[in-house]
Amino acid sequence: MPDRLEMNLLLDFYGELLTEKQQEICDLYYRQDLSLQEIAELMKISRAAVHDTLSRCRKELSHYEEILQMVKSSIHRREIYTKIKSISGQNVSELIDKCIETEIGGNYE
Amino acid sequence: MPDRLEMNLLLDFYGELLTEKQQEICDLYYRQDLSLQEIAELMKISRAAVHDTLSRCRKELSHYEEILQMVKSSIHRREIYTKIKSISGQNVSELIDKCIETEIGGNYE
Repeated sequence: MPDRLEMNLLLDFYGELLTEKQQEICDLYYRQDLSLQEIAELMKISRAAVHDTLSRCRKELSHYEEILQMVKSSIHRREIYTKIKSISGQNVSELIDKCIETEIGGNYE
Repeated sequence: MPDRLEMNLLLDFYGELLTEKQQEICDLYYRQDLSLQEIAELMKISRAAVHDTLSRCRKELSHYEEILQMVKSSIHRREIYTKIKSISGQNVSELIDKCIETEIGGNYE
């Protein structure tokens, strides 16, 4: 089962594949650090429903990572980027920065 | 709608998220170039069922790419890797090769 840090990474990469409600519950639990009971009250659902949703999300997100390995690959590449930057000049460093922009969420155009 | 080349890329990246039957039908159509009728006969299902399956797969795979952008990001990084290799020495080139190994399917350890 992924721990809190791993879940935050999985949410960064695959979170948008979850439903809006799942995303909201994961956000409240893993990012805003609310308890199951607090989330249950806020969302007007049972504590058991919160627990089940979180459990299903962990399973879904772990499945995506098992197949796609986006987190593992990205962490591995970032380590290599760091090595390359440590032995390269400015031209290459700037190109590596462009690679870094494509990591986690593909936040570039 | 993704064309044949795009579908092959989407299948490379996200194919394993489809069911086995979906993967088989996509493989026969997009990689082995069989016709809908040939696939229908081989799988003992109707031509319409083959058509619907392919249509659903295109939609599913396009959805994954829309959210995760693995194909777009990977193509972009590969372009940058090529630039870096063209202006770098052997040390950096070897590190870039390690980056390349992480692209498409994360086929590394």
